[in-house]
Amino acid sequence: MNVYIAEFIGTALLLAMGSGVVANVVLNKTKGQNSGWIVITTAWALGVFIGVVVAGPHSGAHLNPAVSLALAVVGDFGWELVPGYIISQVLGAMLGAGVAYLIYKDHFDITDDPGLKFAPFGTAPAIRNLSSNFISEVVGTFVLIIVILYSTGPVIDDGNATPIGLGSIGALPVAFLVWVIGLSLGGTTGYAINPARDLGPRFMHQLLPIKGKGSSDWSYSWVPIVGPLVGAALAGGLFLLLGNTPAT
Amino acid sequence: MNVYIAEFIGTALLLAMGSGVVANVVLNKTKGQNSGWIVITTAWALGVFIGVVVAGPHSGAHLNPAVSLALAVVGDFGWELVPGYIISQVLGAMLGAGVAYLIYKDHFDITDDPGLKFAPFGTAPAIRNLSSNFISEVVGTFVLIIVILYSTGPVIDDGNATPIGLGSIGALPVAFLVWVIGLSLGGTTGYAINPARDLGPRFMHQLLPIKGKGSSDWSYSWVPIVGPLVGAALAGGLFLLLGNTPAT
Amino acid sequence: MNVYIAEFIGTALLLAMGSGVVANVVLNKTKGQNSGWIVITTAWALGVFIGVVVAGPHSGAHLNPAVSLALAVVGDFGWELVPGYIISQVLGAMLGAGVAYLIYKDHFDITDDPGLKFAPFGTAPAIRNLSSNFISEVVGTFVLIIVILYSTGPVIDDGNATPIGLGSIGALPVAFLVWVIGLSLGGTTGYAINPARDLGPRFMHQLLPIKGKGSSDWSYSWVPIVGPLVGAALAGGLFLLLGNTPAT
Amino acid sequence: MNVYIAEFIGTALLLAMGSGVVANVVLNKTKGQNSGWIVITTAWALGVFIGVVVAGPHSGAHLNPAVSLALAVVGDFGWELVPGYIISQVLGAMLGAGVAYLIYKDHFDITDDPGLKFAPFGTAPAIRNLSSNFISEVVGTFVLIIVILYSTGPVIDDGNATPIGLGSIGALPVAFLVWVIGLSLGGTTGYAINPARDLGPRFMHQLLPIKGKGSSDWSYSWVPIVGPLVGAALAGGLFLLLGNTPAT
Repeated sequence: MNVYIAEFIGTALLLAMGSGVVANVVLNKTKGQNSGWIVITTAWALGVFIGVVVAGPHSGAHLNPAVSLALAVVGDFGWELVPGYIISQVLGAMLGAGVAYLIYKDHFDITDDPGLKFAPFGTAPAIRNLSSNFISEVVGTFVLIIVILYSTGPVIDDGNATPIGLGSIGALPVAFLVWVIGLSLGGTTGYAINPARDLGPRFMHQLLPIKGKGSSDWSYSWVPIVGPLVGAALAGGLFLLLGNTPAT
Repeated sequence: MNVYIAEFIGTALLLAMGSGVVANVVLNKTKGQNSGWIVITTAWALGVFIGVVVAGPHSGAHLNPAVSLALAVVGDFGWELVPGYIISQVLGAMLGAGVAYLIYKDHFDITDDPGLKFAPFGTAPAIRNLSSNFISEVVGTFVLIIVILYSTGPVIDDGNATPIGLGSIGALPVAFLVWVIGLSLGGTTGYAINPARDLGPRFMHQLLPIKGKGSSDWSYSWVPIVGPLVGAALAGGLFLLLGNTPAT
Repeated sequence: MNVYIAEFIGTALLLAMGSGVVANVVLNKTKGQNSGWIVITTAWALGVFIGVVVAGPHSGAHLNPAVSLALAVVGDFGWELVPGYIISQVLGAMLGAGVAYLIYKDHFDITDDPGLKFAPFGTAPAIRNLSSNFISEVVGTFVLIIVILYSTGPVIDDGNATPIGLGSIGALPVAFLVWVIGLSLGGTTGYAINPARDLGPRFMHQLLPIKGKGSSDWSYSWVPIVGPLVGAALAGGLFLLLGNTPAT
Repeated sequence: MNVYIAEFIGTALLLAMGSGVVANVVLNKTKGQNSGWIVITTAWALGVFIGVVVAGPHSGAHLNPAVSLALAVVGDFGWELVPGYIISQVLGAMLGAGVAYLIYKDHFDITDDPGLKFAPFGTAPAIRNLSSNFISEVVGTFVLIIVILYSTGPVIDDGNATPIGLGSIGALPVAFLVWVIGLSLGGTTGYAINPARDLGPRFMHQLLPIKGKGSSDWSYSWVPIVGPLVGAALAGGLFLLLGNTPAT
């Protein structure tokens, strides 16, 4: 599989799961309505898991511009590949969110609150305070990247995603990492920690003819883009400062 | 163990767990009443886990006609074995649902709503709209199959289910995959994603002398049969289109 | 470590976790009060996990007379060791439940309902119907044993509990198995599926000077003893009938 | 990475997750408000996981003075390293709790109850009874340490944290161990089971200019320090009494 197709498919899987679980929890009359934070965070974590299982052996399964940026910063990934990876991730995220909308369309239609109709697409802060929200996204992504960089099991690596003999199990650590970031640090902004995960679905919310939809809230949209990229760059920089050199 | 017996036992285990957990959550006066979507989805996932642990080394643990079909489409499984696998799966699913009924019979007896009495057997959509429901089943199964096909750890494979050294751990990825499909995409139709899982228990609901039972809702029954088979065929076709060839 | 000490410590760990979590969920003013079935079942599963991690390499970590019986039936365990194993398991279960009581004593003291004070010790059926309750225990234990016997990863084996290279991870499958049995089949009787797990703590409830305690309900006590033993014998018998021979 | 930096970073990650999840669950208007004990305990467990993933290969990932003490007691760790490890752990815990405060500051500001504002920092008993609370911390830590010492997979070991081939997966067992201790034994005192985890954040609560904060409750602070150390010493002593010798 071509690396760009792998990033596209992997991110689409991630967002189909992520947008899907939010739709399931917040929309009217679903079987999972109001099933809570444990359901949302577990599904996002396992969405990462299946995205990494599929894309890992082909593209390294970044699925996130912040990951591509950080790996380029530390020298583990070619800068020339970054733009193509990011475009594939954003497009994949659009597809994934679109698929979730397709599945839950009847439930969107019977949900009145435009905020709930937006929730499966982009993130929105619990308390709107852009500087605080920015910090949340920086820190959440910093934790994501620093743990990935120090992970002894090369879950995210180019060309050879999992140690021999572990098979898909090797995709678990990064899923558990995303799980805990969501559980612990996700309560403020909803943990985008991934520019593609927010931007792609926000585009879809803008584009799709969702009955009774409200604003796509573009004034907030820079936070889940710039925050994760800053967090990723800081994590990559600290990694190098601490004397690490790239694995390859 | 004979492959058909393996499929029969594995699917029976899956349904005993799956029907059992729904009974536990929806019926009156159980210890798990109203314990929510996290309980239901975790148990279905782990039901897959134990079914794969038992049947994997013997039949490859399809436990699902959609899996058998997809593996035949991509050339990883002999077409001549498909009918026997499917029959074994449906019969196993009947047994599993019957066992769950046997255990929860006293709770069925004190639950009034015929819809709740049906829930541990077949799936029923949250909003009845057959074309939407069909799409849900197609997409959910598509995700199931495409991830299985791209999985680097051959969890589902004929004759040798798990990489050497991993033992039963190798059955975890497919369980986690089913977990996230349930959490994220299960909120509309209850994620049959498996014709045997729905048809077998629906038969049992028809056959068993359940006090105060209502309709077995046969008019819906084609959705969780045709939807998963279409999703499986599409996933298998895409897999081949993307240039993959069978592993064996 | 001596095999009997290993069984004693492993079962004590299991019950400290199991009795502890029930105390946490049902007693007054705990931090986990009313936190539900997912908390109870996860803790019992992980209680098995830690018991197996500690006892596995030394005694095979049966931690359950039903397991010892089944392994003897299939020829994987010496009959002459069965009595000592069972005694160690019951004594360990007593210690574990006693430790949980010690920790939660202040919460027992401010809980009025004698039924809630009993719950951390022995099992009590949701609907009292001894024949149904007996069936629940038979089936739950049958599933436990048949999956263990067919498990390709020898989690429970004498002397060498986990495949080389997996370390403690090899104890996960049996924990996940207990998790799903609890989630799915535990809603009727509270899934003893282990005579020692019920009998030992029931003794402790009888012996301990718990303020305002009620009956230890000895009239029910045979169900979680005989049911699991019958389930284990049936599973072992089926295993042999299907043509299996012992691993060693 | 220097061992002290590793302990500092690992413990900071643990506390960022641990303080973060408590803030998410107890403070006003977060996305995870009132999401319950399963959320809190899962996040603390996975906080251990990511701390061990990062620090494991460099310092052995004690992240807890009780672990350092116990390993010294059994002869697996040099006494001369203990003070430096402990200082690093306490400082790391301070940093982690500070980060969580930074992220959740707006939610601290709109939460009135000083008790809830303290909860993300130090532990507070559900029922204040110092001798009972002390016992809870002794026993919880005893379980933590004895299972670590008997663990066949050397998750916590100096210099080589995980068996070859397992990668980050080798950090799971200790995370699952902390998970079950929280679920089962955490309902009384909130399971510090780690002097650094309580003392560092308590300092931070004292130092930070939190609007409307109450007491840092220093009169209780010795319980989560002395209790875990006593529990660790008892576990190490029993381990030696049972005839074990250090692995190295």
